[in-house]
Amino acid sequence: MTTVPIEALREALVRRLVEAGSSRETAEVQADMLVEAELRGLPSHGALRLNTLRQRIANGVCAPNALGKHSWRGTAWLDVDGESGFGPVVAQHALTAAARRTQETGVCLVTVRTSNHLGMLAWYAEHWARQGYVLIGLTTSEALVHPYGGTSRLLGTNPLTIGVPTADEEPLVVDLATSIVAMGKVHDYAGRGQALEPGWARDAQGRATTDAVAARSGAIAPFGGAKGYALGLGIEVLVTALTGSAIGTSVRGTLDATETASKGDVFILAPARGGALANLLADFLDEVRASDPADPARPVLVPGDRSRAERTRRIAEGVEVRDALWAEISHQNRTEQA
Amino acid sequence: MTTVPIEALREALVRRLVEAGSSRETAEVQADMLVEAELRGLPSHGALRLNTLRQRIANGVCAPNALGKHSWRGTAWLDVDGESGFGPVVAQHALTAAARRTQETGVCLVTVRTSNHLGMLAWYAEHWARQGYVLIGLTTSEALVHPYGGTSRLLGTNPLTIGVPTADEEPLVVDLATSIVAMGKVHDYAGRGQALEPGWARDAQGRATTDAVAARSGAIAPFGGAKGYALGLGIEVLVTALTGSAIGTSVRGTLDATETASKGDVFILAPARGGALANLLADFLDEVRASDPADPARPVLVPGDRSRAERTRRIAEGVEVRDALWAEISHQNRTEQA
Repeated sequence: MTTVPIEALREALVRRLVEAGSSRETAEVQADMLVEAELRGLPSHGALRLNTLRQRIANGVCAPNALGKHSWRGTAWLDVDGESGFGPVVAQHALTAAARRTQETGVCLVTVRTSNHLGMLAWYAEHWARQGYVLIGLTTSEALVHPYGGTSRLLGTNPLTIGVPTADEEPLVVDLATSIVAMGKVHDYAGRGQALEPGWARDAQGRATTDAVAARSGAIAPFGGAKGYALGLGIEVLVTALTGSAIGTSVRGTLDATETASKGDVFILAPARGGALANLLADFLDEVRASDPADPARPVLVPGDRSRAERTRRIAEGVEVRDALWAEISHQNRTEQA
Repeated sequence: MTTVPIEALREALVRRLVEAGSSRETAEVQADMLVEAELRGLPSHGALRLNTLRQRIANGVCAPNALGKHSWRGTAWLDVDGESGFGPVVAQHALTAAARRTQETGVCLVTVRTSNHLGMLAWYAEHWARQGYVLIGLTTSEALVHPYGGTSRLLGTNPLTIGVPTADEEPLVVDLATSIVAMGKVHDYAGRGQALEPGWARDAQGRATTDAVAARSGAIAPFGGAKGYALGLGIEVLVTALTGSAIGTSVRGTLDATETASKGDVFILAPARGGALANLLADFLDEVRASDPADPARPVLVPGDRSRAERTRRIAEGVEVRDALWAEISHQNRTEQA
């Protein structure tokens, strides 16, 4: 592993994206998302996505300078054809227009299709909460998750995020996928030859397995049994109904390098009420943190606490990146890239 | 148990509510919610709520004819002071205004405070999906759930619902609480002297317990570990931020008979796109149902399938109600009521 200062990582990512055809402006937004995922300990959504993004640009399924075509379905519903742009660029462009519109409407619904991978949803919740907005974000992805009581890949990992400003400097940011683990984690376990925990996955034939290699071509379980399945399925159907995206096994382009992105993204944005309410929320979160833990050695955490601590540490110390990946990103040794 | 035809149950509930001060119109909406909960196998939200509702009316903390006071925070955000009305009455009145408004805005956010218990959220999702709307519904409730890694009651069971029309007669309806079980179930187990499953609950001192009696004054676990906790906490904070309701242990009036209801409700309503998309959604849900099950004897279900089957059976056969409860509702023997 190489420890890379985050500014060096960000600048190298921007350069590689510009080299592939991005404007500096769109490259910076996409690179910021990749760096933030590294900072928060979500490397599956970080620098390793660069190569796929570059391949997607080369293959004509990512248009690095597209901002998305906006049409309004009513005064408070912004519907976006992402024109195969970078997910974060199209989403932030739309959310900026939506935020402006909420001055009149109080709330705005943003629906996006044909846009590339959104990346880590917490990034959006954090950004807009810091601007004073409550945000709900949902996105679908390629089918990797089996139904509760089922065996085949039929659902995306379908994450959701909630962002709420509080009187604290840090907003509340919830970001969770509806799968029990990420497929990236299954790949990590496979790479290390480590067994999965029972109940996490099934193989390509639908048999329960703890073999990470077999699980890579199989399906991951939903989190939380029937309830997590219901939530993930609800997100899949809701997002498709609102965006007109593809659904289930027809979703493409969030993992591969060759197909147009056909998943959908949904955001709901509303300015927070603020005032005394912001203090109430901050006090409540502190009450949760201060409440009696089950294990005295492990204080109760609020969602986002751990990733923020990791972020602070990595801003100071830099980000650990695999040598081959860093060589590729930094152009030190492009012929040996992994 | 007495088997009661549903029309007889509905009519008896309406009469008791009218007797307590409701107009026939508001009583019918509230009674319909209670009957539907019985039909779908959620008796904790059914006829047994009548007594608390009547007591709340008598105690002046439920105003059975209030419809809620509407103010618009922007053209698409309907903010409602529920004026202590019946939860279903205030919500449906607001959602009707919101649905009308979506013709102009495309989406409407409805935020409600000071309104009584909403009851079973699936009822709203089903109703509005049948009218062609996508609905998201969230509500908070009195603190019964401990944080992940924590031990004390700090969060409501905070359910969410998602309703989406499809080309099928039946819409997709997801309705899940973010607790691992309902407190009603803990009470049922306590009544039967049955042990809880490990991991479900803690006692009043915060110790893990399988003793249902001890758990009644303790806390229930969130479903799905850290993720379900994050979702439930996210709902708690989001709802308070948008509605200005109470939060955490300050929430009152969803279980007791004496205090003003201080939880909040949030709805997001948008007309579905319909057309070919409605077929795509119906086909996808059928694909999920037809997919290979883990146990050949138990086909894969879509959320709502089981409760719809129960509903159909009970419409034909009637609803099982405890003898004492039916005596109370039907006035057959008011002095022996439980």
